[in-house]
Amino acid sequence: MKATAAAHANIALVKYWGKRDEALLLPEAGSLSVALDKLLTTTTVELGDFAADSFTLDGHPEDPCRARALLDAAGIRKRARIASGNDFPTAAGLASSSSGFAALAVAACAAAGLRKSADELSALARIGSGSASRSVPGGWAVWEDAFARQVFAPSHWDLRFCIAVCAAGPKQVGSRDGMRATRETSPYHAAFIAQCRRDLPDALKLLAARDLPGLGALAERNALRMHADALAADPPLLYWQPATVACLLALLELRASGVAAWATIDAGPHLVAICASSDAGAVEGRLRSVPGVTEVVVCAPAGAARVLS
Amino acid sequence: MKATAAAHANIALVKYWGKRDEALLLPEAGSLSVALDKLLTTTTVELGDFAADSFTLDGHPEDPCRARALLDAAGIRKRARIASGNDFPTAAGLASSSSGFAALAVAACAAAGLRKSADELSALARIGSGSASRSVPGGWAVWEDAFARQVFAPSHWDLRFCIAVCAAGPKQVGSRDGMRATRETSPYHAAFIAQCRRDLPDALKLLAARDLPGLGALAERNALRMHADALAADPPLLYWQPATVACLLALLELRASGVAAWATIDAGPHLVAICASSDAGAVEGRLRSVPGVTEVVVCAPAGAARVLS
Repeated sequence: MKATAAAHANIALVKYWGKRDEALLLPEAGSLSVALDKLLTTTTVELGDFAADSFTLDGHPEDPCRARALLDAAGIRKRARIASGNDFPTAAGLASSSSGFAALAVAACAAAGLRKSADELSALARIGSGSASRSVPGGWAVWEDAFARQVFAPSHWDLRFCIAVCAAGPKQVGSRDGMRATRETSPYHAAFIAQCRRDLPDALKLLAARDLPGLGALAERNALRMHADALAADPPLLYWQPATVACLLALLELRASGVAAWATIDAGPHLVAICASSDAGAVEGRLRSVPGVTEVVVCAPAGAARVLS
Repeated sequence: MKATAAAHANIALVKYWGKRDEALLLPEAGSLSVALDKLLTTTTVELGDFAADSFTLDGHPEDPCRARALLDAAGIRKRARIASGNDFPTAAGLASSSSGFAALAVAACAAAGLRKSADELSALARIGSGSASRSVPGGWAVWEDAFARQVFAPSHWDLRFCIAVCAAGPKQVGSRDGMRATRETSPYHAAFIAQCRRDLPDALKLLAARDLPGLGALAERNALRMHADALAADPPLLYWQPATVACLLALLELRASGVAAWATIDAGPHLVAICASSDAGAVEGRLRSVPGVTEVVVCAPAGAARVLS
């Protein structure tokens, strides 16, 4: 009745920002992501007749409410002790919900002795966090409906993802509330979703062809349009910090100097630069020089969530 | 054959961002602005049989091409020597095209001895720059078609507009090119224009009622939606600097602490905070403390363009 699993966080190149069904947690449009090797969450689940569920993240107690929703969806009635740890260099909110709920889904089913397919595990992880559905298959993954699937193995394309950790100010609006507010109040949201539906097939072709300028520019446009959609909400949702803009301007300078790197940004201040492995050193160095950037983590594509013990 | 005129720059609370007619320079949606007392341009026009048109801004030669288009539209065939000076504390691109072309239209017609109505002068200024049409009537002005009109005198409401000059990086895309690129490539542009058409009548009601929280929040939403529209263009148009975001976050903090101030931002990095005159000192002080802000100019509403001599 105890198991440990690990999963990688992922970054979306075509973003998920809006649910077509709030109860079933289904996305309005399909998204494309890649799992990141340096962002690993390891989670141990122990099931038993405890007084209550408990959940710790890096040793600190957290609300087990969303974890319980996931366990209920798996048909696990026993109480759970969940201990999760992020193997990240910082605790700066680097998409840990994607890896966290993917590791939880895999560990919980292993602890309960449930034989679930990869698709079923992905669908379960989705209950915790939509983006977690993509961390179960890992690699280059697409999520459109109940579960995500790997469309290319990590080895398909040896790109680098340089995460510039941008000093965070006051706490932002969480993704779940942020996307709901955007959907309800942004006059741009329908156009953003329509754009994502065009972007996904285009991105898959560019990914298949390993076209970095094409996929990089598409991912950057898609991310900026997601942030523009949120910024247009009422009240406005501004996820950026000054360093986020400084990183965007640094990438413009890098491209003007011949270094091919494009940005994506999740619902937070951190910027992820997409580049060839041969350019990762130059991109990392430039981002480290940006005022307000506290750390740069260079990641490669990673694989699926897995049971460790 | 020589005259001098002065005009104030204006800041839009409902933005102009897109032309319905590129040749006639007519806007897709109506805009609302207020003229700013500290941003004054003084322009002297001398007409004569010179070898060519000439144009200097603060003593530096500039291309007289747009000025010539304005003179042609006024029926002025003689060559012009135009000397324009900005009475601004900085040369950081503070909407000087609005005051510049308004002063030019008024000075050129005075130099030529042409008797033009205020509406005709506004329409002429429009040929140089759309926003200049609003600097001719000054005060609180609305521009929807060929010319702008003052809808309230400057004395209607003694607000303050605190301009945080945000250190500029590489040169941005100019407004004329930026709005054309946005109109042609942003998937959000139709929604932005539709929003402006809803915002203008709402803003006029809030202005009539002197409702600062209402008008401030509307102006901030409208400005962020304009920037979001531009950010969604292909390639993306990012007018902000790191300090722009820092100022936006500073205003959020100010509001949380009970100081009522809202932002507007033209197509550039500088932020303008809208507040009551009694709060201007607190807002100015806070903005001065933001890293990257090189200066803060506190303005009150100003009047129409006028002939000086």
